[in-house]
Amino acid sequence: MLVQKYKDMLSKKSVIRELSEFATARGKEIGYENVFDYSLGNPGVPVPQEFTDTMIKLLQEKDTSFLHGYSPSLGNTYVREKVAASLERRFGLPYKKEHIFMTSGAAGAIAHAVRLISQPGDEILTFAPFFPEYHPYVDLSGAVLKVVPPSFEDFQINFEKASEMMTEKVMAVLVNTPNNPTGVVYSEETLKKLADLMTEKSKKYGHPIYLITDEPYREIVFGGKTAPCVSKFYDNSIMCYSFSKSLSIPGERIGYLAVNPACEDAETFVYMCGQISRGIGHNCPSSIIQLAVAETLDMTADLSVYETNMNLIYNELVDLGLTVVKPDGTFYIFPKAPIPDAKEFSKKALEYDLILVPADTFGAPGYFRMAYCIDTEKVERSLPALRKLIKENY
Amino acid sequence: MLVQKYKDMLSKKSVIRELSEFATARGKEIGYENVFDYSLGNPGVPVPQEFTDTMIKLLQEKDTSFLHGYSPSLGNTYVREKVAASLERRFGLPYKKEHIFMTSGAAGAIAHAVRLISQPGDEILTFAPFFPEYHPYVDLSGAVLKVVPPSFEDFQINFEKASEMMTEKVMAVLVNTPNNPTGVVYSEETLKKLADLMTEKSKKYGHPIYLITDEPYREIVFGGKTAPCVSKFYDNSIMCYSFSKSLSIPGERIGYLAVNPACEDAETFVYMCGQISRGIGHNCPSSIIQLAVAETLDMTADLSVYETNMNLIYNELVDLGLTVVKPDGTFYIFPKAPIPDAKEFSKKALEYDLILVPADTFGAPGYFRMAYCIDTEKVERSLPALRKLIKENY
Repeated sequence: MLVQKYKDMLSKKSVIRELSEFATARGKEIGYENVFDYSLGNPGVPVPQEFTDTMIKLLQEKDTSFLHGYSPSLGNTYVREKVAASLERRFGLPYKKEHIFMTSGAAGAIAHAVRLISQPGDEILTFAPFFPEYHPYVDLSGAVLKVVPPSFEDFQINFEKASEMMTEKVMAVLVNTPNNPTGVVYSEETLKKLADLMTEKSKKYGHPIYLITDEPYREIVFGGKTAPCVSKFYDNSIMCYSFSKSLSIPGERIGYLAVNPACEDAETFVYMCGQISRGIGHNCPSSIIQLAVAETLDMTADLSVYETNMNLIYNELVDLGLTVVKPDGTFYIFPKAPIPDAKEFSKKALEYDLILVPADTFGAPGYFRMAYCIDTEKVERSLPALRKLIKENY
Repeated sequence: MLVQKYKDMLSKKSVIRELSEFATARGKEIGYENVFDYSLGNPGVPVPQEFTDTMIKLLQEKDTSFLHGYSPSLGNTYVREKVAASLERRFGLPYKKEHIFMTSGAAGAIAHAVRLISQPGDEILTFAPFFPEYHPYVDLSGAVLKVVPPSFEDFQINFEKASEMMTEKVMAVLVNTPNNPTGVVYSEETLKKLADLMTEKSKKYGHPIYLITDEPYREIVFGGKTAPCVSKFYDNSIMCYSFSKSLSIPGERIGYLAVNPACEDAETFVYMCGQISRGIGHNCPSSIIQLAVAETLDMTADLSVYETNMNLIYNELVDLGLTVVKPDGTFYIFPKAPIPDAKEFSKKALEYDLILVPADTFGAPGYFRMAYCIDTEKVERSLPALRKLIKENY
């Protein structure tokens, strides 16, 4: 007898996946180059040549047991040292290898972090709009994801609601900055206010409330700025990182969990991660990918296309009179639909071969997401369609 | 507050790991070449050149988004097709890609299989001696691992006890053949008898009892023989495979789960696996490793050294008068210690720089395991030490 909870998940098809399947089918009819597919957050830029060169060099020069042998259950020690040194250099916090655990992307890191600090029935707080996959990461651990409603004017944090919902049952707050789907980066002011609130509540309840930070878009920030380092603002914090976007290698499933060196029991955390991995049967990312990433840690793919695309789309949306917060980074933008029902709007957009994702599952009904990790040339061709969609209907 | 169950696991240090750490430390004193380390099942033979060549060719010739882009959550479709075709060709069962789910080795496959078919409180039956990591795979899912005592004379199955312990609570039987730690391959007779028993019990209880087969050693069988295909004997079976041993790439964490095409709901199984992955945050093995494995599916590393080593050790053990069942495959041998307390024996062996693993955690106290995946030259040098250990003490 198959377990019902997983069977039930099958019937709830992801809106994003349905739209993406529509785009593929429509592409077969009219040519995929004519479908303006803004549905998937699949990084489109090439992997840096240095990554490919490093892989080839490793394969040509190193012993196969070094390349493909078991890595320790916390990750390759040399790789963990390199990650820690890079974080220390970049953010000034005293990370050592003892604080680093190699994971299958940010997803693996978040799912581990949730299991580390919550029991079934405990609550994890996040802020809308939010990445819908947080639900399986949290729900299937037995904990409960509670979603604080959005602060629509700027997509920073709705602190009034956050304070209200940060009850004794809350064991962790999960934030995503730069944010999917809004593209907004939490300001230093927001992070400081959040830290103060969490410190106050931790004291009040007599147990730590951990800050889990989902940071796969950390290197995609516009205007030559950098995103504030969330962990600097709060000691009991767990950084979840992925190389999927920075190196454009999402299929390699590699990232890390970095426990704040100032966190209580910081080193125990990492050892416990190894135990969680034993239970789920997934130890470490690929050994050769770990080694290759260690040599290209501070590099990124050429991410400038995302800013170019953002400016094109943002200016067009503003020009069309749509309400939209200008993204600080990522490759997402999150406008308000011209009608209250964003699903209906998204359906209408399909008639113009525009694939836009209604944001109901992101916790912000009435809004839609565009993932502009596509060629600039295609973005340019999509703008007349967008204009037509708005002008002819709203 | 860190979750206690994972903290508790930290205090239960693995005997194998402790011994392996001792071996490393002792190696620093006297040179690692002088430590006869039979503790770890870490394949020592080189990766086939074809695997390395395939990896380099992929990196040199293919587009980076093809190589490193997201793979679908069930695994790369092309790879799943190739795996299914290979299984069909080799074993004559009509596998299609719909039956294949790519995993992080056999570990990931087993942990998924357990979660597919059991709820907290349900029982999973396995046969001693067994791979101790079955405990975390099962225990942390909430199900209960029940261990049928060994059939010491041949390390096939103790059917009297198996029948007694296969109660209504049992949802699956987990077998490992060729077996770690005994090296024994279950005979066709054993598999037929097991299938009959499971069919009878399934009927009696009115629910299927699934057969989960852990087969990472399938390609390491001695005397030019092959291991019987377990899935041929029982429809409701789930094959868990790893390329760790066949291609000598354990660090790449790649394998698959293959549901018997005759299994009820076979295709739903695979989709449900994708949902389990979402929950634990671990989607798919590395994309480039999937592609490389697809091109080297029916190859193996040169595994002949394991048979050479086995014969050397087996003959010596017999000559020394120890009770031992001759392995049919793998790179393990499982002799009876010359005294009832195998831990004490293993401790004494350390004085001779012999690292032997007492089998208490394998569910067979009084026995010990030798993992002979080391150089033949070292095996030869270890035999006088083994002889001395026995002659001087027992």
